[in-house]
Amino acid sequence: MTDEDLDTAAKALDREYVFHSWLAQANLDLPVIAGGSGATVWDHAGNRMLDFSSQLVNVNIGHQHPAVVAAIQEQAGILATIGPATANLTRGRAAQRIIDRAPDGFAKVFFTNGGADANENAIRMARLHTGRDTVLSTYRSYHGNTGGAIVATGDWRRMPNQYARGHVHFFGPYLYRSEFWATTPEEESARALHHLERVIVSEGPDTIAAILLESVPGTAGILIPPPGYLAGVRALCDRYGIVLILDEVMAGFGRTGRWFAFQGYDVVPDLITFAKGVNSGYVPVGGVIISDAISATFDERVFPGGLTYSGHPLAAASIIASIDAMQNEGIVDNARRIGDEAIAPALAELAEKHALIGEVRGEGVFWAVEMVADRGTREPVAAAVIGQLKKEMSARGLVPFSADNRIHVVPPCVVTDDEVAQAMAIYDEALTAVEASG
Amino acid sequence: MTDEDLDTAAKALDREYVFHSWLAQANLDLPVIAGGSGATVWDHAGNRMLDFSSQLVNVNIGHQHPAVVAAIQEQAGILATIGPATANLTRGRAAQRIIDRAPDGFAKVFFTNGGADANENAIRMARLHTGRDTVLSTYRSYHGNTGGAIVATGDWRRMPNQYARGHVHFFGPYLYRSEFWATTPEEESARALHHLERVIVSEGPDTIAAILLESVPGTAGILIPPPGYLAGVRALCDRYGIVLILDEVMAGFGRTGRWFAFQGYDVVPDLITFAKGVNSGYVPVGGVIISDAISATFDERVFPGGLTYSGHPLAAASIIASIDAMQNEGIVDNARRIGDEAIAPALAELAEKHALIGEVRGEGVFWAVEMVADRGTREPVAAAVIGQLKKEMSARGLVPFSADNRIHVVPPCVVTDDEVAQAMAIYDEALTAVEASG
Repeated sequence: MTDEDLDTAAKALDREYVFHSWLAQANLDLPVIAGGSGATVWDHAGNRMLDFSSQLVNVNIGHQHPAVVAAIQEQAGILATIGPATANLTRGRAAQRIIDRAPDGFAKVFFTNGGADANENAIRMARLHTGRDTVLSTYRSYHGNTGGAIVATGDWRRMPNQYARGHVHFFGPYLYRSEFWATTPEEESARALHHLERVIVSEGPDTIAAILLESVPGTAGILIPPPGYLAGVRALCDRYGIVLILDEVMAGFGRTGRWFAFQGYDVVPDLITFAKGVNSGYVPVGGVIISDAISATFDERVFPGGLTYSGHPLAAASIIASIDAMQNEGIVDNARRIGDEAIAPALAELAEKHALIGEVRGEGVFWAVEMVADRGTREPVAAAVIGQLKKEMSARGLVPFSADNRIHVVPPCVVTDDEVAQAMAIYDEALTAVEASG
Repeated sequence: MTDEDLDTAAKALDREYVFHSWLAQANLDLPVIAGGSGATVWDHAGNRMLDFSSQLVNVNIGHQHPAVVAAIQEQAGILATIGPATANLTRGRAAQRIIDRAPDGFAKVFFTNGGADANENAIRMARLHTGRDTVLSTYRSYHGNTGGAIVATGDWRRMPNQYARGHVHFFGPYLYRSEFWATTPEEESARALHHLERVIVSEGPDTIAAILLESVPGTAGILIPPPGYLAGVRALCDRYGIVLILDEVMAGFGRTGRWFAFQGYDVVPDLITFAKGVNSGYVPVGGVIISDAISATFDERVFPGGLTYSGHPLAAASIIASIDAMQNEGIVDNARRIGDEAIAPALAELAEKHALIGEVRGEGVFWAVEMVADRGTREPVAAAVIGQLKKEMSARGLVPFSADNRIHVVPPCVVTDDEVAQAMAIYDEALTAVEASG
C-alpha cells in the first residue's frame, strides 16, 4: 500500500470498527495519526501537525522520546506483565522514583491503570482511614468516569466499597467568573475558603472523609488557585480531621513547570493521584502516592481494592525512563521557562489584539484562553465559534485543545521557542479569520 | 549486583515503596518474579516456578510470547501513544481482529484500560440504550472495583453517569451448593431461571436495563453454566427488552478452549466485555464489543463516556499479535485439548484419591478444585487449609491460584502435557502433605 492508501485504510477501519470516547459515532472524520516526535505528529503521507494539545494533555515528554521508547522495548523483552502480588524490581524502582519526587512524609505508591481509578483508590483510602463517608469536590472538576463496577460486583469485595454516595460539590475559586462577588485574587481566595468552611460545617465536619481537588483544575479551565487558597484548604482539613487528596493527573509531572503543581502553592496533601505525565501515557498507568499515616492504616488491615494490572512492569519501565529523562534533560525546567518567557508574553499580545479573548491564565505549558462574545459581560462565545477556531487551527497544521468556550494551550513540556512562535502565529491567524467571518 | 542481590533489592524496594492490591501491607513476603516464558516464571537467581495461576488468570498466551513481545517493541518504536479522538491504523486493525472473532451482529469495539471500566462502559451503554436504570447481576460474581470517580467529578460528565444505583443481585446456578434445592443440572438450570424471572418481575421488567453475567463466573468458582441456563437468560432478556451483557474478562480469549466462553452455551449477548486474555495483559487494556443495535444508539447521540488511553496503540499492537499467534499456533485448540485430555482425567484421579476434594469442575484451562472438610456436608475447609496447600505447592515450585475454599487450576493456554503432569504431581504431594499434617 502507498502511504496515502494507509491513511485511507486507517480511516476506513476506524469508521467501521472503532467506537470513540465522548462523541456521537456517525460522520466522524478524525485525523489519522501514524507517528510523532517531540511536539509534532504526522499521518502516513507525512503531513505534519504541531501538537498543542499533548493529545489529552498527557504527552508531557513529547512524542516518541527515545529513552522511554527504548525502556519499553527492553522491558518488553524481559517481562511484559506480572500479577500484582509479586515483587518486581522494575516496579519497585518506579515507585522509588515517584516517592523521591514527592515531599517528605510520603511512604508508598499504589499503581492503577489511569487517573480515574487512581481517584477511586484515593477515595477508598481516605474513607477507610477516617471512618467517614462524605467526599467534597468542586463543581468545576473532572476526576474520571468510572462509577458502578463494584456495585455490580456480587462478591464480598462490593461490601466495603459502595462509595458512589456522599459526594457533595462546592464552588472553588475562579475570579474571572467569581461565585463570591469578589474583585481581587485575595478576596476570591478568602471568600472561597469561607464558602468551603460553611459547606464543611453544614454537612457536618465529622462526616467528611476527604476534600478532593485538582491542584490546578484542568479541563475545567486551568483555574490557577489564588494566593493562599490551597494552604487555606489544608488548614481547614487539619482543623476538621479531613484527608486532603490533590488530583495531579493532568497538572502533575512537569505540566506547570514543577514536578507537582501543588509545590507552587505552599500546601502538602495526604494523598496525591497521578497518571498522564508520569510516563506521558506511553503505557496506560496511574496511581496514588500515599502519606506515611494513611499507609500505616493498611499495615495490618487488608486494603479492599486492587486490579490485575497494578504495578505493570512495562508501565513501570516507562515511568523510570520518563522521570529520569525529564530530570536529566531539564524538561520540567523547560516547561517553566517556556511558560514564563515565550507563552505568557505571546498570549498577552494575542489578548491585546483580539477582542474574542476575555482572559488568559496559566503557567508552564498549561494555559487557558477564554473566548467571550463580550468583554464587558464576559459572556462565553457560542460553541460554534470554538468549532470554527479549531477548524482554522487544524487547517494551519496545529492540533488544538478546546473545552467549553476555551482554547487550552497545552503543548508537551519539551516544546521549543520556535514551535511556540509557530503556534502563536497560527492562533493569531485563526482568531483573525474567525473575527473576519463573524 | 549478583543475581541474588537483585532479588534482595527487588524485595527491599517492594517492601519500602509499593502498596499492594487486596492485602494488608505489613510483613508481606511476595515472590520476586524477574522473567518468564510460556508457563514458567523465575526470579533473578534463576529459581523456576510453574505458573498455574496465569498470574490473575490473564496470561493466556503464556509469558513472553515472542510475537507479542516483538509487536510491542515495533509499535513502541513507531507510536507508543495517541489520544482517542484520532484514527490509527493499529487500533483499527485490533478492533477488526476482535470483531472477526465475535458472532455476527457485532459492530464496533470500545477500548478501555481493563475489565472494570469495560463493565462500567457496558452498563452505561445498556442504560442509555434502554432508558432504564436497574442492572441485575449475581451474588457470586466479580465485575471490577471502580465505583465513585464520576460521582466525585463536578462537571457535566457526572450528570448522565451517576450509575452506582439500581444494582440488584440475584442467585445464579451452582449445583454443588444449590440455592434452589436442585439435585440435577437440568433442575438447577430450570430453577435458577425461574428465580431470575421472579426477580425481574418483582423489580419490574420495565425498569431493568441489563443483566450482567460472567459467561462462566471465574473467581467466584468457575461455575460452568448448567444446560440451557444462558440460553434461558437470553430468552428472558428478549421477552422483557433487557440488554444481556456477558462479562468475558476472565473466561474469554481461549481460557475455556473457545475464543469466547459463551460460544459453548447457545447464547449471543448484546454486549461483550473483555480484558485479560485479549492480549494476556502484556499492555493494560480491556473493552466492550458492541452489537449493531446498541452501536446505532450512539450514531447521532454523544456517548458520555471515555478515557485518555482508549484505543492505545501499544495495547492495540499487542492485541493483533496475540490474536494472530493464538490463531496460527492453535493455542485456543490446545487449551481445549489439554482440558479434555490431560487436566480433566488427572483432576478426576486426584479427587478419587483425596478426601479433601469435594468437587472438580471446569473446561479448557479453567478448573476449580473445591476443598471440603466433609464430603457429606460439603462444608468448606478452613482458610488455613488453603493457606497450607498454597505453601506446600509454592515450596514445590508451582504458582497456585486460590479463591475462598478452592484451588483454581488455571495455567496459560499454551501449557503442555508434560507441565500438566508436573503440576498434578505437585498438587497430589501438597494434598498428601496437608492431609498428613491435619
